[in-house]
Amino acid sequence: LKTLADVAAAVGGRLDGPPERTVRRVAPVEDAGPDDLVFVKDERWLARLASSGAGAVLCREGDDVGGRPAIRVANPRLAAAQAAALLVPPPPWEPLQHPTALVERGAAVPASCALGPYAVVGRDAVLGERVRVGAHAVVGAGCRVGDDSQLDPHVVLYPGVVVGARCALHAGAVIGAPGFGYEMGPDGPVGVPQTGTVILGDDVRIGANTTVDRAAFRATRLGDGVKIDNLVQVAHNVTVEAGVIICALAGIGGGATLGPRSVVGPQGALAPDASLGGGTILGARAALASGQHLDAPGRVFMSVGPVPFEDWKRWVVFRRRFARGRGPRGAPPA
Amino acid sequence: LKTLADVAAAVGGRLDGPPERTVRRVAPVEDAGPDDLVFVKDERWLARLASSGAGAVLCREGDDVGGRPAIRVANPRLAAAQAAALLVPPPPWEPLQHPTALVERGAAVPASCALGPYAVVGRDAVLGERVRVGAHAVVGAGCRVGDDSQLDPHVVLYPGVVVGARCALHAGAVIGAPGFGYEMGPDGPVGVPQTGTVILGDDVRIGANTTVDRAAFRATRLGDGVKIDNLVQVAHNVTVEAGVIICALAGIGGGATLGPRSVVGPQGALAPDASLGGGTILGARAALASGQHLDAPGRVFMSVGPVPFEDWKRWVVFRRRFARGRGPRGAPPA
Amino acid sequence: LKTLADVAAAVGGRLDGPPERTVRRVAPVEDAGPDDLVFVKDERWLARLASSGAGAVLCREGDDVGGRPAIRVANPRLAAAQAAALLVPPPPWEPLQHPTALVERGAAVPASCALGPYAVVGRDAVLGERVRVGAHAVVGAGCRVGDDSQLDPHVVLYPGVVVGARCALHAGAVIGAPGFGYEMGPDGPVGVPQTGTVILGDDVRIGANTTVDRAAFRATRLGDGVKIDNLVQVAHNVTVEAGVIICALAGIGGGATLGPRSVVGPQGALAPDASLGGGTILGARAALASGQHLDAPGRVFMSVGPVPFEDWKRWVVFRRRFARGRGPRGAPPA
Repeated sequence: LKTLADVAAAVGGRLDGPPERTVRRVAPVEDAGPDDLVFVKDERWLARLASSGAGAVLCREGDDVGGRPAIRVANPRLAAAQAAALLVPPPPWEPLQHPTALVERGAAVPASCALGPYAVVGRDAVLGERVRVGAHAVVGAGCRVGDDSQLDPHVVLYPGVVVGARCALHAGAVIGAPGFGYEMGPDGPVGVPQTGTVILGDDVRIGANTTVDRAAFRATRLGDGVKIDNLVQVAHNVTVEAGVIICALAGIGGGATLGPRSVVGPQGALAPDASLGGGTILGARAALASGQHLDAPGRVFMSVGPVPFEDWKRWVVFRRRFARGRGPRGAPPA
Repeated sequence: LKTLADVAAAVGGRLDGPPERTVRRVAPVEDAGPDDLVFVKDERWLARLASSGAGAVLCREGDDVGGRPAIRVANPRLAAAQAAALLVPPPPWEPLQHPTALVERGAAVPASCALGPYAVVGRDAVLGERVRVGAHAVVGAGCRVGDDSQLDPHVVLYPGVVVGARCALHAGAVIGAPGFGYEMGPDGPVGVPQTGTVILGDDVRIGANTTVDRAAFRATRLGDGVKIDNLVQVAHNVTVEAGVIICALAGIGGGATLGPRSVVGPQGALAPDASLGGGTILGARAALASGQHLDAPGRVFMSVGPVPFEDWKRWVVFRRRFARGRGPRGAPPA
Repeated sequence: LKTLADVAAAVGGRLDGPPERTVRRVAPVEDAGPDDLVFVKDERWLARLASSGAGAVLCREGDDVGGRPAIRVANPRLAAAQAAALLVPPPPWEPLQHPTALVERGAAVPASCALGPYAVVGRDAVLGERVRVGAHAVVGAGCRVGDDSQLDPHVVLYPGVVVGARCALHAGAVIGAPGFGYEMGPDGPVGVPQTGTVILGDDVRIGANTTVDRAAFRATRLGDGVKIDNLVQVAHNVTVEAGVIICALAGIGGGATLGPRSVVGPQGALAPDASLGGGTILGARAALASGQHLDAPGRVFMSVGPVPFEDWKRWVVFRRRFARGRGPRGAPPA
């Protein structure tokens, strides 16, 4: 339980209600009771608030919340995230090292660490204090993992990977597999050896089954506070600067660069050697072409959406005409 | 072996041939012998049938199959699936619990279950009858798994996840990793705690390396009979109603809803809070934008296809002109 | 260390410098020292070469490299890959079989093989000479793996899968999960049994967390020298001919065919039963529709790129007008 005064201070908001009133958690508008804090992000949510049992609300200046205790902020969604971080304690854990966990020769595992069943810590790997390695996770030879980082079950770190402090790697993430470097030769693809590594900063989050490849030379680098969703591919020699968000199923091609606090939406992409400027936002499915540079802080770039089947067939016909050099007749279908 | 009469009854078709003739399996037209049942879905397949050795055929009313024994149905593909389910017995297995499988304190594992090598069943987890847990699979603390469900090798259930009866989770699937909830703050992304869970109904199928995230609040829910392909992302707070099909590499954004028996094609997507109506079909690569609602039972929606490189370059030029405010000159390239 | 004469011979280039000069590795232009060989692929790289400390350079005929020792070739990138393969020895390994590795009844594991901690080799599986099975990898019952192949940690081969010689399967790859074959029936999806297998040729490379499904009948086949990146889906009954390259997050639908040395770019796709001709290149995100055949050796096909948010909104409006039958007014937004 925290007082509204504490919450208002944590989120940098203006309190419009009793400072000693307490809340227990952030809840959805529909589920909320008197101990709950909710947030309203737009007019639609504001309308639903009327029938909510919420004890207090995070809202914008000027929102009419019917006299309910309120903390007024510029961005209620952001404030809800900040409030939740204050209200929800991290789940408890104990520094147990399961008897089936293997620690190979030369590896350093402080007594404050937890190792799950069948976890493997390879030769000469170095874990910081309070590191948690989940069931079946594999820390490759020579890896370093910073204090308070968490490797969920089935995470794989290839040899030599460096993970910062307070990172969270979710199940099935694979860090440091060899980059995909092939040139098509006369007898088929010829591979380039991938002799670099991967370096993750502090407070990095890697989603389930996401892959981050080792560099051909030097390192694939993810800066402090980078947050990556599930099933994302980060190729070799990519540089992701601090505070970047990458959503599910996005692909970041070899050598691409993401500036600080840029965002790549779900199924988005940077082709090889593309660069996205700091604070620039690629919406869902948007992509940069190979070598393309896009630097437009705060602007959002989109891809086009779905098309009814009948229109799609007309597109195909339109294109065929075009491809035959007959030129377009009439505008293309939407 | 089943008689054609049995097969016709199982698929709800009209038998046009000897009822006591037997078939052993459903086979492709090219491979079929006298014990095999084949299906023809269109005229092209019908033409290939002439040279097939198939003993019997699933086809439409009116198809000319040259006097071959036939079971006539509205949808031969569906009938082939129904016939195959009748003809192919599930693979045999034994209720062995490997000595290296770990069952933690308080977990309930009936003697009818099979546990593979190095499988881990966490504290207080409850398995139903005849559950199979593959090699290295991890059932988190407090999970519940219904009767006759199958977790293939390397499946991970995070703590508290609920799986119904007769489910099949394929290798590397991760159920219940924390949802990806971040708001961009002035100092970088701020995370929202993900305190909900995941609930799968009965007869759910989850593909290899697919991820289904736990909800921020309450539960991410997949209804009875939902079938999901490989490498699909289902985000937090998604609701997938009964009988939905989701194909490979599709992404379902946070809070999205899929109505009963809707379909999402390969690489398709619902952006956050989108909803797809019951029976509506998103074809390959089609996507709904954030908050978009599409409810058109039986209709198919498509995305656009590939473009020759030369046309693509003209697109880029066309767009640049447009972006500079000079307006389009001539129609855009197809 | 190799002499420039040796390197020139290996890459089929013309040496323009002292044949006895030696190099140790291929390095990026910016990092290179006197023992390093670099490559320049275009004019921009050529400009950066001036300030490089590189001892020798791979370049095209006619490139002005300021008198530096040079090996002149048609394709410097390809030559760099060939040179690197010559200069970088494969990492050393020892044929150790960890005491926790399980070899089930009837399996054949030569003494020249390495088995990592908690690796599992199933019943009657047959490993060739010098096969390496990583930590927690699972080789299903009856699988065969050819000489000198490498299964990284957490790879899963379902029962009966065949892997050729000198293959590299990276962490989390899943080979042989059942194909996704469903038909929508009146009561929901009906599954088709998947009784085939997967057969990989020699020198195949499978990326981390990539999935290759078993066929409904017969086999999903990947030919010799096929190279697949991370997080790729290869569905049932696909045929991938020799020397094909498939980039990250691409999806190959059921029954599709890829001709020899064709390329599928990142997030590209072949819908079911599509076919891509030998040597044809689908660029990033390009896709073939269901049943589409594209056979254009050496040509590159692209998808369209990202659109500014404002233009995207105009697209949506344009389409709505179009959908209402009012026809386009003015050209659509770029």
